[in-house]
Amino acid sequence: MLLDQQYLFAPGPTPIPDRVKAAMNQPMIAHRSQEFPKLLEDVATRLMPVFGSENPVTVLSGSGTSALEAAAANVIEENDVVVVVVAGAFGDRFASICETFGANVHRLNIEWGAACTPEQLEECLQSIPKEIKAVFVTYCETSTGVLNPIKALGEVVKRFTNALYIVDGVSCIGAVPVDMKEWKIDILVSGSQKALMLPPGLAFVAMNDEARAVIRNCKAKRFYLDLNRYLASYETDKSTPFTPAVSLIYGAQEVCRMFEEEGFENVIKRHLLLKEMVREGLRAIEVPLLTSDEDASPTVTAVRTIDGPSKQIKKLLKDKFAITVGGGQKKLKGEIFRIGHMGYCTPFDVIKVLGSIEMTLKFLEGKDVLGIAVKRAEEVWMEHV
Amino acid sequence: MLLDQQYLFAPGPTPIPDRVKAAMNQPMIAHRSQEFPKLLEDVATRLMPVFGSENPVTVLSGSGTSALEAAAANVIEENDVVVVVVAGAFGDRFASICETFGANVHRLNIEWGAACTPEQLEECLQSIPKEIKAVFVTYCETSTGVLNPIKALGEVVKRFTNALYIVDGVSCIGAVPVDMKEWKIDILVSGSQKALMLPPGLAFVAMNDEARAVIRNCKAKRFYLDLNRYLASYETDKSTPFTPAVSLIYGAQEVCRMFEEEGFENVIKRHLLLKEMVREGLRAIEVPLLTSDEDASPTVTAVRTIDGPSKQIKKLLKDKFAITVGGGQKKLKGEIFRIGHMGYCTPFDVIKVLGSIEMTLKFLEGKDVLGIAVKRAEEVWMEHV
Repeated sequence: MLLDQQYLFAPGPTPIPDRVKAAMNQPMIAHRSQEFPKLLEDVATRLMPVFGSENPVTVLSGSGTSALEAAAANVIEENDVVVVVVAGAFGDRFASICETFGANVHRLNIEWGAACTPEQLEECLQSIPKEIKAVFVTYCETSTGVLNPIKALGEVVKRFTNALYIVDGVSCIGAVPVDMKEWKIDILVSGSQKALMLPPGLAFVAMNDEARAVIRNCKAKRFYLDLNRYLASYETDKSTPFTPAVSLIYGAQEVCRMFEEEGFENVIKRHLLLKEMVREGLRAIEVPLLTSDEDASPTVTAVRTIDGPSKQIKKLLKDKFAITVGGGQKKLKGEIFRIGHMGYCTPFDVIKVLGSIEMTLKFLEGKDVLGIAVKRAEEVWMEHV
Repeated sequence: MLLDQQYLFAPGPTPIPDRVKAAMNQPMIAHRSQEFPKLLEDVATRLMPVFGSENPVTVLSGSGTSALEAAAANVIEENDVVVVVVAGAFGDRFASICETFGANVHRLNIEWGAACTPEQLEECLQSIPKEIKAVFVTYCETSTGVLNPIKALGEVVKRFTNALYIVDGVSCIGAVPVDMKEWKIDILVSGSQKALMLPPGLAFVAMNDEARAVIRNCKAKRFYLDLNRYLASYETDKSTPFTPAVSLIYGAQEVCRMFEEEGFENVIKRHLLLKEMVREGLRAIEVPLLTSDEDASPTVTAVRTIDGPSKQIKKLLKDKFAITVGGGQKKLKGEIFRIGHMGYCTPFDVIKVLGSIEMTLKFLEGKDVLGIAVKRAEEVWMEHV
């Protein structure tokens, strides 16, 4: 095989389009120059429809986790009561961050592989007699491939509490619909390396005015991730308080152009098609999936290996077909693998990964599956051509 | 003029070599893949001589300030007494970070434009009766172009205290000598966008074993910048706790190759030459400098505008010659401009900026200086060819 041809189907980082690479290669500029404010403002405003935000999106330089921390550390003061929906490793991380910063954290534990229902959240919120400062929910739980019903959960949050509704959109924003106002989201965060088709290194925070007021008054200690500094710097001169990752912001500008050219509603449709092709294809060769169709994210699909294909499948996909998929995390380690299908991903990529899974199953288990998943995926695709 | 030809002489971000851009354009890889640990280990160990570190260098995804915060927030507990040498805007930022995280901060204020002397530090340390937890010093104070005498200050720190010696090397590491063991530095931090010839977005922390022990026992709240997480993740599987800025790390690998090809001792000599050319050239046309030769950094030179060329010079350099220099910061705003000459910078670049300053002075003030600074710089260069 051509060793340089590697196929990245991890649920992030995801492949980078050539034109985004080219954009990132533009000559470096100083962040205190005349040019940078134009660039930052352009990106911050063009991302607004992608985040369903009425305010420009705040750009941080850091991993997705830096945005999760920013969302928590700018809101939480010692002993504040918060609720975190934990339906996988990233809900668990959100809860750990809240605990680190001194919150009294109520974890609403959901079976890994299922979404949180409005009824579960309502019951949890009703059981807490104290004032709740914030409710944290993961939109797409990357570790399980579950998409939580953010709109319906927002209804519950605002009906039963005065809490801020804070959503982790790291592994789906840029591939799914979202409307912060209609869905009652106060803070929505994401990272660059998933559906946004960029290398890792940028993190995004969209805040409504209510959230900004809470953040302004929050006494908690923070410096690098102090959102007030970012908001003030943007307000004053469309800049950032600290040297930003300029090349990645150039890349983000090109991604915005690509979204606008495809039409963001078509980006969303494409991801729904990718999801359906992956799931229908795998189902056609009797590979068991972790989540129901209803709970599944359009960006990542978790495959059960515990009662399905051998755990060796992940290694063989890599060794024989140069295909990288994600493994299981924490308590799902060894029990699943995960196929990322977001960002710079087309139906042909799904055919590629399904074909490789067919050949790997034939190789590993002698299963007579060649062409079957691909055929089913093509049928699904043709319904949308 | 060719509008696309822009010349970046800001004291960071600095220009990116084409081969570093090419390296950053390598296909994206997953950070939980087989490939990433090899990349990270390679970079972390190849950076050791650049940081004068006996341990692999820890790589964070963030601005340089994230590394300053990491150095403070992983060491300081509530009411710890610390000393911060403040000789400019970045010393001031280091002090603000320490205050944010609850330290009892003694600021040793040095006149902006001068370096801290060992005597000044000794007097300050002797005047504090309490146990000092850490002493923070800026190696190159970017806002003034001053290089503090880190080795001599380290002697004083360790003679008079048991404090950790923590050094901000953001705007010089990669261009200057440093030896953490011999110079008694416990923590040395830097950023990617200055002498390291990378876009902004990576931050680096080198720690000796004593610092690691303090960090391990520190009870302060931190998550994204918790250095214990980075050390543990590197120890376990040569990875990072959170999705790292992979493309920039590819770039860092290429920068290490470039340093090795040039020979790091030659990189250091080149910067000394650039400094001498800039200073001698400006002196030949009677442009006043902020700092003495002895205190001046080889990476950035501050020019006085208050009693020298008009404040308009910065704008004209940009408008007429597409040359970006840095302005003055905080209390030096409007009083100086700053020429960055670090990283991917050659003697020809110095000739370019000096020639443009000559032409701008002729244009602005009718001064008969054409060719004079350039001639002097060429003379200096020829002594070293």
